[in-house]
Amino acid sequence: MAKQKKMVEAITSMDVDFSKWYTDVCRKAELMDYASTKGCMIIEPYGYAIWENIQHDLDARFKKVGVQNVYMPLLIPESLLQKEKDHVKGFAPEVAWVTEGGGEKLQERLCIRPTSETLFCEHFQKVIKSWRDLPKIYNQWCSVLRWEKTTRPFLRSSEFLWQEGHTMHETEQEAEEMTLRMLQVYTDFYKDTLAIPAVTGKKTEKEKFAGAVSTYTIEPMMHNGVALQGGTSHYFGKDFAESYEIAFTGRDNKLQTPYQTSWGVSTRMIGAIIMVHGDDNGLVLPPKVAPIQVAIVPIAQHKEGVLDKCREVYSELYETFRVKLDDSDQTPGWKFSQYEMQGVPLRLELGPKDMEQGQCVLVRRDNGEKTVVPLENLTDTVEKMLADVHQNMYEKALKNLEEKTFTATNLEEFLDIAENKPGFIKAMWCGDAACEETLKEKTGGVKSRCIPFVEDHVGDVCVCCGKPAKHMVYWGRQY
Amino acid sequence: MAKQKKMVEAITSMDVDFSKWYTDVCRKAELMDYASTKGCMIIEPYGYAIWENIQHDLDARFKKVGVQNVYMPLLIPESLLQKEKDHVKGFAPEVAWVTEGGGEKLQERLCIRPTSETLFCEHFQKVIKSWRDLPKIYNQWCSVLRWEKTTRPFLRSSEFLWQEGHTMHETEQEAEEMTLRMLQVYTDFYKDTLAIPAVTGKKTEKEKFAGAVSTYTIEPMMHNGVALQGGTSHYFGKDFAESYEIAFTGRDNKLQTPYQTSWGVSTRMIGAIIMVHGDDNGLVLPPKVAPIQVAIVPIAQHKEGVLDKCREVYSELYETFRVKLDDSDQTPGWKFSQYEMQGVPLRLELGPKDMEQGQCVLVRRDNGEKTVVPLENLTDTVEKMLADVHQNMYEKALKNLEEKTFTATNLEEFLDIAENKPGFIKAMWCGDAACEETLKEKTGGVKSRCIPFVEDHVGDVCVCCGKPAKHMVYWGRQY
Repeated sequence: MAKQKKMVEAITSMDVDFSKWYTDVCRKAELMDYASTKGCMIIEPYGYAIWENIQHDLDARFKKVGVQNVYMPLLIPESLLQKEKDHVKGFAPEVAWVTEGGGEKLQERLCIRPTSETLFCEHFQKVIKSWRDLPKIYNQWCSVLRWEKTTRPFLRSSEFLWQEGHTMHETEQEAEEMTLRMLQVYTDFYKDTLAIPAVTGKKTEKEKFAGAVSTYTIEPMMHNGVALQGGTSHYFGKDFAESYEIAFTGRDNKLQTPYQTSWGVSTRMIGAIIMVHGDDNGLVLPPKVAPIQVAIVPIAQHKEGVLDKCREVYSELYETFRVKLDDSDQTPGWKFSQYEMQGVPLRLELGPKDMEQGQCVLVRRDNGEKTVVPLENLTDTVEKMLADVHQNMYEKALKNLEEKTFTATNLEEFLDIAENKPGFIKAMWCGDAACEETLKEKTGGVKSRCIPFVEDHVGDVCVCCGKPAKHMVYWGRQY
Repeated sequence: MAKQKKMVEAITSMDVDFSKWYTDVCRKAELMDYASTKGCMIIEPYGYAIWENIQHDLDARFKKVGVQNVYMPLLIPESLLQKEKDHVKGFAPEVAWVTEGGGEKLQERLCIRPTSETLFCEHFQKVIKSWRDLPKIYNQWCSVLRWEKTTRPFLRSSEFLWQEGHTMHETEQEAEEMTLRMLQVYTDFYKDTLAIPAVTGKKTEKEKFAGAVSTYTIEPMMHNGVALQGGTSHYFGKDFAESYEIAFTGRDNKLQTPYQTSWGVSTRMIGAIIMVHGDDNGLVLPPKVAPIQVAIVPIAQHKEGVLDKCREVYSELYETFRVKLDDSDQTPGWKFSQYEMQGVPLRLELGPKDMEQGQCVLVRRDNGEKTVVPLENLTDTVEKMLADVHQNMYEKALKNLEEKTFTATNLEEFLDIAENKPGFIKAMWCGDAACEETLKEKTGGVKSRCIPFVEDHVGDVCVCCGKPAKHMVYWGRQY
């Protein structure tokens, strides 16, 4: 067991240094590596397999609501970017510019897309002529680039992978419904696939996307009480469409401007998975996105028949699950900690004694529970247990979110919680951005996360200025 | 039928202007659109759905041979690109440089990846320590950028989508086998999925990839007698590994250098599909990558029961095929030409008379054949017919390739064929790059395509210089 011990010791404990624990998990579970390109990262096979499972699941959800995938250029001419003034103001400081190509200095700078509203608008301007051409419900899976000074694997890097949906609609109502529908798709995905609960709602004016009329957000709570903006859905009204001169002939034969949305989630979700579910032994993966759902570890594998039996079990499970049989010459102990580190939901142990009894041992990653089960109907047993793992992971995460949600009714309470109790703070707000600024300054970084769809009435006056409150807001520190 | 006629007339005939026919198909079948970013294109939903089907099929083939997907940064620091001298010489003239980011001028230029050997090598240098870490069989699906002056949809654009595989091996033999295995994966994919036959073989020294020891290629023949480099697989030996200082401890406990390969195919394949299979009515799609495999067109759809019956048929076929029921208010004639233009392999017509008889009409896109079939066992019938469509498309394409392959035994014949008979020219070659250059100049562009794995002996001397021949080479013009 010496090797096992060594591996586990190699991770910093969450309680000692959460930030170091996080990067340790990223590296030791072989999710990513650093590259010499400043601010960019390499997603290694195990990390990328999680992303592929995310894509596969989410893309199917998109297609069910009529989304069509497309691909837009990587580069945006400066003149195109500048057509929507709020948008360019928000993004210009953080873009990378291509100024030379094919051995020559370019006449016009091209920026690497930080997001692609401008390109989609240019295309929509050409293809939307009549109400019959609407709605357009487009999406692309790609990488985007936003220059970052300080980076952190998956959470903040100059380049990251994401999907960006862009839609155009005939009416305001349809576009607003689309915005909320996609937020719901994300919420369902977080819950049903990632086993992650979250607070959802509307961003304040100060925190909304550059150029949007309104931004909706999903905010899961990390294990350490820091929130993460886990995905956003924006309603644009007609602003972009007007800037990019998009118009269509309506049912009334008059020229009209369409209504627009955009929405996106990124490889940040892998960061959320790590920080919501992980523990001091490493990663804990939700079964639905785990690259390996069941790791079979033979016990005393040199004994006659053990490996054959393990191969038999592998063949049975292979049809239904992502399963790995590890018949390498490492010790079982080494394998145990390896698959713990990599967050494999179920470990299946099978040795000579088990063979005799027609059984095997299933060990859950989420709670360490060991169960001896008959080899008969193993597929059903594993299926049920994986469903239990998912459910338990969700409940644990929900408990953490609830325990880390506090209520403040005055400034003193707010500052005390901000100082001493990491998590969400529910507090009333007058609607003034100045109060958001004040709270951020006084707390050293607590910002409004969102105005939830259902607002608990936790007071009458703004927690900051004491004027009559307009909304209950979730506040918190963020990644 | 006025509308139908109008649509068909809108495409230039192949015989009148093949190049115009090609771009007409790209645009009218709604595969792509132009963007204001010079040299880049937008892949529209119908075109992108073809690419998704290609990816899905090919990625499964990759995974069967043990390929793991990863993601590497978009940007390459200039110093990293320059480590392999031949490589940088080949690519430097056609890259785009990022010189400003986050509002500041960068200290070191970053190029947008034209290909990612350098990044993979940098990573391999860190993760390969022992022979136990080998082989590494990595791949990424991404976009790359190579500055192009003249562009053509799918065939040549500054940015394009592709996959690039990069592998490292313990022995020369294993790496060489990998190179050829991936060429075989491509060849099988072209044949079994795209219904496209091709010539395969080794590139001459002059035509090989910048930095490779040897390059293998798959070269399908377009309808107009012009070849396309449809995919390449490169063997690198130890050159890159040495430049990037990649070394591992071998089984003999000595420090060794690994052997490397890379291989890729791109959205060019969509260009190949168009130009191999298309006709004057538009696109003809191989069933396995067609976004719509069966288009159901109701006849006299206002008549009682017709739409219901069509929906019933749709529900039956939906489980097995990608099927679309078009109940829009366009005329059947309009729909016929629409799905012809989009290359849908099978059209299913169903009207009141068919309902009475318990039948429907299946019309094949590849040969226009109409068959009345019973509604009973329709899934089996459609399955069989789609397999026939694939087979017939392959045979037609093979016939075209064979008919457009000529043999030249002396320079006069070579020049005559190059002038008058578009296609491949089989001719002997001395092995000297100067003769390749001469032939290219004299013909205005005919280049060596490849040295096939099995060389027909079509003469004893080089078709150009008359010296003793070393190889039989396929020659031709290329996209």
